[in-house]
Amino acid sequence: MKLLKGNIIFTKNADRFEVLEDGYLLIDSDQILETAFDLNEKYPEIEVEDYSGHLIMPTFTDLHCHAVQYGNLGMGLDKELLEWLETYTFPEEEKFSQLDYSKKIFDLILKDLIGQGTTRIVFYSSIHQASTELLMEMCHQAGIHAYVGKVNMDQNCSFGLKERIKDSIEATKKIMAISYPSVKGIITPRFVPSCSSELLKALGTIAGSEYPVQTHLSENKDEIAWVKRLHPNKKDYLSVYDSYHLVHEKTLLAHCVFCTPDEIDLIKERNAFVVHCPSANKNLISGLMPLRRYLDKNIKVGLGTDVGAGHTLSMLETMVQAIQMSKVYHMNHKDLRPISLSEAFYMATKGGGQYFGLHGSFEKDYCSDLMIVKPDPIESIKPISPIESLEKFIYTNDRSRILKIYAKGKCLIDKNTIK
Amino acid sequence: MKLLKGNIIFTKNADRFEVLEDGYLLIDSDQILETAFDLNEKYPEIEVEDYSGHLIMPTFTDLHCHAVQYGNLGMGLDKELLEWLETYTFPEEEKFSQLDYSKKIFDLILKDLIGQGTTRIVFYSSIHQASTELLMEMCHQAGIHAYVGKVNMDQNCSFGLKERIKDSIEATKKIMAISYPSVKGIITPRFVPSCSSELLKALGTIAGSEYPVQTHLSENKDEIAWVKRLHPNKKDYLSVYDSYHLVHEKTLLAHCVFCTPDEIDLIKERNAFVVHCPSANKNLISGLMPLRRYLDKNIKVGLGTDVGAGHTLSMLETMVQAIQMSKVYHMNHKDLRPISLSEAFYMATKGGGQYFGLHGSFEKDYCSDLMIVKPDPIESIKPISPIESLEKFIYTNDRSRILKIYAKGKCLIDKNTIK
Repeated sequence: MKLLKGNIIFTKNADRFEVLEDGYLLIDSDQILETAFDLNEKYPEIEVEDYSGHLIMPTFTDLHCHAVQYGNLGMGLDKELLEWLETYTFPEEEKFSQLDYSKKIFDLILKDLIGQGTTRIVFYSSIHQASTELLMEMCHQAGIHAYVGKVNMDQNCSFGLKERIKDSIEATKKIMAISYPSVKGIITPRFVPSCSSELLKALGTIAGSEYPVQTHLSENKDEIAWVKRLHPNKKDYLSVYDSYHLVHEKTLLAHCVFCTPDEIDLIKERNAFVVHCPSANKNLISGLMPLRRYLDKNIKVGLGTDVGAGHTLSMLETMVQAIQMSKVYHMNHKDLRPISLSEAFYMATKGGGQYFGLHGSFEKDYCSDLMIVKPDPIESIKPISPIESLEKFIYTNDRSRILKIYAKGKCLIDKNTIK
Repeated sequence: MKLLKGNIIFTKNADRFEVLEDGYLLIDSDQILETAFDLNEKYPEIEVEDYSGHLIMPTFTDLHCHAVQYGNLGMGLDKELLEWLETYTFPEEEKFSQLDYSKKIFDLILKDLIGQGTTRIVFYSSIHQASTELLMEMCHQAGIHAYVGKVNMDQNCSFGLKERIKDSIEATKKIMAISYPSVKGIITPRFVPSCSSELLKALGTIAGSEYPVQTHLSENKDEIAWVKRLHPNKKDYLSVYDSYHLVHEKTLLAHCVFCTPDEIDLIKERNAFVVHCPSANKNLISGLMPLRRYLDKNIKVGLGTDVGAGHTLSMLETMVQAIQMSKVYHMNHKDLRPISLSEAFYMATKGGGQYFGLHGSFEKDYCSDLMIVKPDPIESIKPISPIESLEKFIYTNDRSRILKIYAKGKCLIDKNTIK
């Protein structure tokens, strides 16, 4: 058990922060046991780790990230989705047939990821089984919580990435049979255009309601028109997935920029997750995602960095982009108010974290992943509140303030020990 | 003289990068003398500083930044302009009547600024003469190029910031009489609502066409409506400034989000500068700035961080935001194409730099401010071009890649010597 003292901050609900200034947090290696102002008196036998003046907060959850696009991070952002896939993304993903290349990229991305305070992530790998298995093992070794998906694609992609249905399904079954304590497989049809109906049907049969699923939905207008041409008899984009039983409460739908009211209703009915990816939506000129419409319907929403269409693994920057894009949306939709700082934080912690179970909050029994954040230099000049200190940490994306990161009770980053 | 070898990259024109891969750059302490591939043969007597694999590029220019709002950086971003000024900004600026507070904040901002690769900046100080003088001196000591403006305000502001016209003008004259080799004063009426016609008239008389001027223009719709109410007989917002002779070729007009076609024509006619502040325009829900319209008219445009409404001093992040916001604008204005990477880079270097003279390029006789940027870690895994390396540096905003920064021939940052 550990008893931590500091400015404890988290979101139980999206509309406000819970703040314990100079409060205490009691954890064991698995779970949050208690938060209160007097735990030092209640448990005098436990030594206090004193982080007075520091923020103690949950780590972040990234619900949409292509690990195999990390080699292109911050490059090739001059095209729209379909051309971008052909020009930059498919050629890069082909390289993951080579395990030595995969290992180098996964080493880099995992180091970068954890350094940003993200300890829960849902990854797309490539179509390659061996590479996907490697990524699962490396996530396990790194000590984070992850779902890792082998991408399924049997049409409309480069030759080197085109799978035979049988191979695709067999490899997927093997991935889904692998299980580490905190790392699991996830069914990953890339998006409707790259999957034949047969493939989607076979994946739906594996997935049932027991396996997690991730895919893309309504990111780009050309993509949506293409889906319409490919499936003229389906009501809309989401109905294609739904008709193959791929939409349920463990389904992650990334982007959802242009969903129709019917699609939004079906997402709600199936209790699926929407993953908002504000960086990619701008970089690929996809569109403005009407985030408030999903939140108003109490649809589960998390944030995704969507690397490599997104240019950062930072959930701090992703929160800022989500807030800013909701403000831009509000400029032309005055009835839909921008999201607040606490709403952004909630999505980046508990909102996305619920995909993993009791994650991303400091309520009792939640997983004890947390980070300790030093005061900002400005705090030596003027006093600010814990919420302001957090706001500044988020907006300035100042990773140098991260002192320690714990996941599953293990310290992954300790700046006290880094020279 | 110094002879540097590396991947030399700059923009002579906005539409493309000039790249000398494994090229040479010859400089003296003041100026760029020559760039070519064979300078080692031409000048065998000069020892080569070898930065092979590194980028050698101009430093950045920030044309709009409120030094006195740095204490609020990344905080209080939940309101629109006019309420934001009253709630957060004016109370903070009042503190600059105290020189010890000013010094602490200016120390922090200058350190942060230079660490980001910005060596040319146009600052707003507060209304306070002593603080403004201090900022000028500290910019000089820091070795950067700067214009520093004492803000003028005699109405519609908090009591502590309200000046008597006589005092405002006297203090302004004193500031304008100060001159360091690379630091000068600039006439700074805050914006129309906070300046009486008398004050604007008096400032226009000082400014004439010889002194630089900076102010805000058409940032927010409520602000514009207010200007209309205050000056019902003026054609538009810009005409107020223009009628007092404050708009000329050394005038910086920040924001320009909602300029009318007439205003745009007048900006062009007066050959004034537009300063695009993409971060602030989103944070304060001001609006989408139609950047391409100004570029299409060959109006001089530079970038501004607009700290503290903008949340970062990074010109890298500001470039990304400018590109992204031009993409968002393009979503609903298909005829106005997004700005390219080279256009963003041009604005951040030479485009803004021209306010200082021959600045922000590696053409002959340009000022020899430059930075050396290490390769990205990805470059040890896969080869990328110098332009891709620059693109990645910009998008990932990775300051850890900055090895050295020179301004006016002096090394301001040398990571080789920092432990």
